[in-house]
This record gives sequence, structure tokens and C-alpha cells, in this order.
Amino acid sequence: MKLLRVGTAGAERPALLDEDGTLRDLSGLVADIDGELLSDESALQRVRAAAAAGDLPVLDGAGLRIGPPLGRIGKIVCIGLNYHDHACETGAAIPEEPILFMKAPDTVVGPYDTVLVPRGSEKTDWEVELAVVIGRTARYLESAEEALGYVAGYAVAHDVSERAFQIERGGQWDKGKNCETFNPLGPWLVTADEVPDPQALRLRLSVNGEVKQDGTTAEQIFPVGEVVWYLSQFMTLYPGDVINTGTPAGVALGHPDPKPFLKAGDVVELEIEGLGRQRQELKEA
Amino acid sequence: MKLLRVGTAGAERPALLDEDGTLRDLSGLVADIDGELLSDESALQRVRAAAAAGDLPVLDGAGLRIGPPLGRIGKIVCIGLNYHDHACETGAAIPEEPILFMKAPDTVVGPYDTVLVPRGSEKTDWEVELAVVIGRTARYLESAEEALGYVAGYAVAHDVSERAFQIERGGQWDKGKNCETFNPLGPWLVTADEVPDPQALRLRLSVNGEVKQDGTTAEQIFPVGEVVWYLSQFMTLYPGDVINTGTPAGVALGHPDPKPFLKAGDVVELEIEGLGRQRQELKEA
Repeated sequence: MKLLRVGTAGAERPALLDEDGTLRDLSGLVADIDGELLSDESALQRVRAAAAAGDLPVLDGAGLRIGPPLGRIGKIVCIGLNYHDHACETGAAIPEEPILFMKAPDTVVGPYDTVLVPRGSEKTDWEVELAVVIGRTARYLESAEEALGYVAGYAVAHDVSERAFQIERGGQWDKGKNCETFNPLGPWLVTADEVPDPQALRLRLSVNGEVKQDGTTAEQIFPVGEVVWYLSQFMTLYPGDVINTGTPAGVALGHPDPKPFLKAGDVVELEIEGLGRQRQELKEA
Repeated sequence: MKLLRVGTAGAERPALLDEDGTLRDLSGLVADIDGELLSDESALQRVRAAAAAGDLPVLDGAGLRIGPPLGRIGKIVCIGLNYHDHACETGAAIPEEPILFMKAPDTVVGPYDTVLVPRGSEKTDWEVELAVVIGRTARYLESAEEALGYVAGYAVAHDVSERAFQIERGGQWDKGKNCETFNPLGPWLVTADEVPDPQALRLRLSVNGEVKQDGTTAEQIFPVGEVVWYLSQFMTLYPGDVINTGTPAGVALGHPDPKPFLKAGDVVELEIEGLGRQRQELKEA
């Protein structure tokens, strides 16, 4: 299923995009698309059955904002340098184990919302990423194979990053990862059953129409199952938590000087095969 | 006011400890102690008036668990190496600007709850910290003086840390800061009006009755107002966000070898002048 949330920011209603591409209202059936729903197999089954039976009311999408496809996110854990080609372009060594940093859930916006260049920023950068949404509480999992069973679904994430804040301002990347609007998410949460191989997804990102990133999750150093297993050794993952699994080569930081960092007026478009497309215009904060 | 939350984990009710030390029920007046309450000056005023008038029902505290004094925490931002004496003991340089890392809100437990030593951990460490709770949305503040007006109150936080996970496992401290139960908070949220000078608070921590940390917030390299101002240049702070403002000298990491890291059965007690006292027993995860 393609689950989404539509409406004004903070007041989104749950919806479903059916197989014909018709937007359907889920608000009569579930309160929200969140960890509570994703961990409730029988509620998901009711949604699935209603969709199959054609019982869900059609929603007029005209003029409707698409919000992030997940509400009440608990935490966002991000994996750094998780693509062979991206580690290369930044001059970093291939990590021996996953590098982990965090974004606050309040950085999340919808896939077509404005992204703000922070005040004083000269190095705002893009990163298309496969977001993994957790559906069951994951704690000290046994194996990467088992770990995939804890994934509720997948989405496109834009891990916007300010490189000077991240790297040049006194240690720890979180400082350049948590500016407001820095995590567009969506348009959809695609349930895991419709993503048979998360390691075979093409990711692309362009800036002002010029392709900058064109990679595949096959390049991930630590694939999704291994990332979920690994994280569960250091923290408990809960339904509604999100993992941004890293970005392929092609970020501004990896370009020769002068690096083409983002500025107000730029338009970023990104997509992952089967998971939909985002488009953001940059503005000054 | 001393605000707190009592009851079983996940089902705490709001309460107040009045000036006579009597526990009072707030659940008839407010839904929870959270960002919504802390940003609502008239609701706070109603609580204050009811407390002054002696109108609040007495709550029998016998056998009642004290939970964390804040619900629905948005994010927890932590400041690293923020005490002159602690930076010294770890052999680190005095930071030129605040070092920032993050803990997930799901690490928060009550002040007397069990703390779990993670599986595979050999370097679980203690850190008593002054926690700052945000009461108004703070974005690109002008000055440190102004910033103090965005603080709703203060609490004791225990920033439990696994040093091997934090430092020896491939970059970024978050990996050793987000294990389950790693952020005991409370017992109370003391409103800012009752903490006239946050830079004059004594902090103490003992392990199995032996004093390990005995410091003062006067030793903070970046005082509370400056920290809030600084953070607001990199991220938006919302009501109900928490800042752990760093720890003074005396952590296990700063001891000569063999360093006395925590193990199951240890008891940690910590307190900050005027903000109350915590006590945790350590167990295996």
C-alpha cells in the first residue's frame, strides 16, 4: 500500500493512493499514519481489505498539500557514509561499522514544502536517501535477516545538510543536520510487502533540472537489514521511528571547487524508484 | 513551582509538590506537564493560583512511582565538554563553541527507575547534568540575555553514556548516548522563577555511596543563556524540548586505570541544589 497524509501542516489526515492512482480517504478507518497503526497488524489488514473492496471514499486531491507520510515520529537515526561511491567522493575511508547521527522529528516537512537555507549558511547541501520506517519494537535483534521483519515500509527522505555547521563548527555532525525543514519525507510510505528488494532501488536527485545524484541502494555498504540489526544493539527502535540509510555519490561537498551549494531560489527534485518523487524550492530562513 | 508526573510508566498523571512538601493532584486542572502547558502562560497561572489558594487535592504518594517530570518531549539536545574541569579531565581542549549531540526522547525514564547496562558494554559511565526545559519557540534569538526568557524550568538529568560505543565505534557520540533508560530525568521540573541564578547550582553524584562528582554550574564554559541562544542559530527549539547542559569533572572516563565503569548492582545517586535527587540501581539489559 501507498499510505500518505494530506492537508495543512500539523492537521494532516490519513489517506491511501490506490492501485489506479486514486486518492482515498482513510480518516474514517484510522486516526493517523503513525507507529500505532504500523504496529497494529489487524488495523493494517482492515485498511488493506477496504482498499481491495473499493470501500474507501475518494478524496479530491486538487490543491491539497501532501504532508510527511508519518505522524508522531519518535526518533530519526541516520547512517553516515553508507554508500561506497559517496564515501569515496568525500575522501572518507569506508566505515568498518555504521556511523550514526540523529535528526529531530521536528525537522520533518512534506515532500513539496519549502526548504529553508539557514541564516549564515554558505554550505547547504542535498542528500537523497532511502528512509526505513520501523513497525515493531526492535531490541537486540539476532540477525540482519530477522531485522527486515521489523520494517513497516519505505519512503523517500531528503537529508538536507549544512556542511560548515556539520564539520567546521566544533565536532559532531548533528549541528548541521537539524536546521528547520531539513528533512522532507514522502510523498508516500510504501509498505514493505511492495518493496521486495530494498537493495535494488534507483535513487536520483537533480538541482535546477541538472542531475546530481543517480545511484542505487545496491551500493550501500550496510544494507537495510544489517543497519536495523546493528542499531538494535545500541538503542531500542520503536514503531514510528525512521532510519535515513545514507546517500549515494553526487552531493555538493563532493564537487570540485567552487562547490555548488544550495541557495534561495534553487529547486531540488528527488525520487526513488517505486517510492515517489519530491520537489522543494529553497528560500532564505 | 515544582511540577512532576506520578504513576506507572506511560500513564503518569500531572502533580505538584507544594511549599509544604505535600503532593497535590493536577490532573483536574491540566492534561499533562508538557510543552503545551509550559507555553500556555494562563494555564500556568491557573495552576499557580490553585496552589496558592490550597485548592488542589492532596495525592497519596505512598508507593507511587515518580516518572519523568515532562511528557511528549520533542527533542533532547546535549552539550558536550561544557565544564572547564570536565574538559580537562578527559584531556580535551576547551571547546571554542558548544559541542552538540542528541539523545532520543525514548531514553528518558523516571529519577528512581532502573538504568540498564547495555549488552556488551564495558564502559557505562555517569554524568550528572542540569537539564533546561524550553517554554517558548526559540529561533534565531538575538542574545544570551533574551534567551533565558525562553526557559520554562530546570531539572536534574542523568546523561548516562557508554564510552566505548561513544568514542571507539566509528565516529559520532550519539551511538553511546541513546541506549534504553540512558536519560533519567527529574524528580521535578522547577519553574524558572524559582531558579534565580542557573549558574550557581551545586551538582553532586555518588556511586555506591562514594562521591564522584561535586561541581557547580559556575564552571560551565557556555552558560545556559548562551547555550539556548547558540542552539537557536542552528535549529528551532520548541516548548517541551530539553537541553542537557553538560557535566562537571568526576566521570569514570576521567579516572586513572582501571576506570570504575558502572556494572549491574551499582547504585548511582545524584542531585542538584534545589532541583531534587535521583537514585538508580543498575541492571543488565
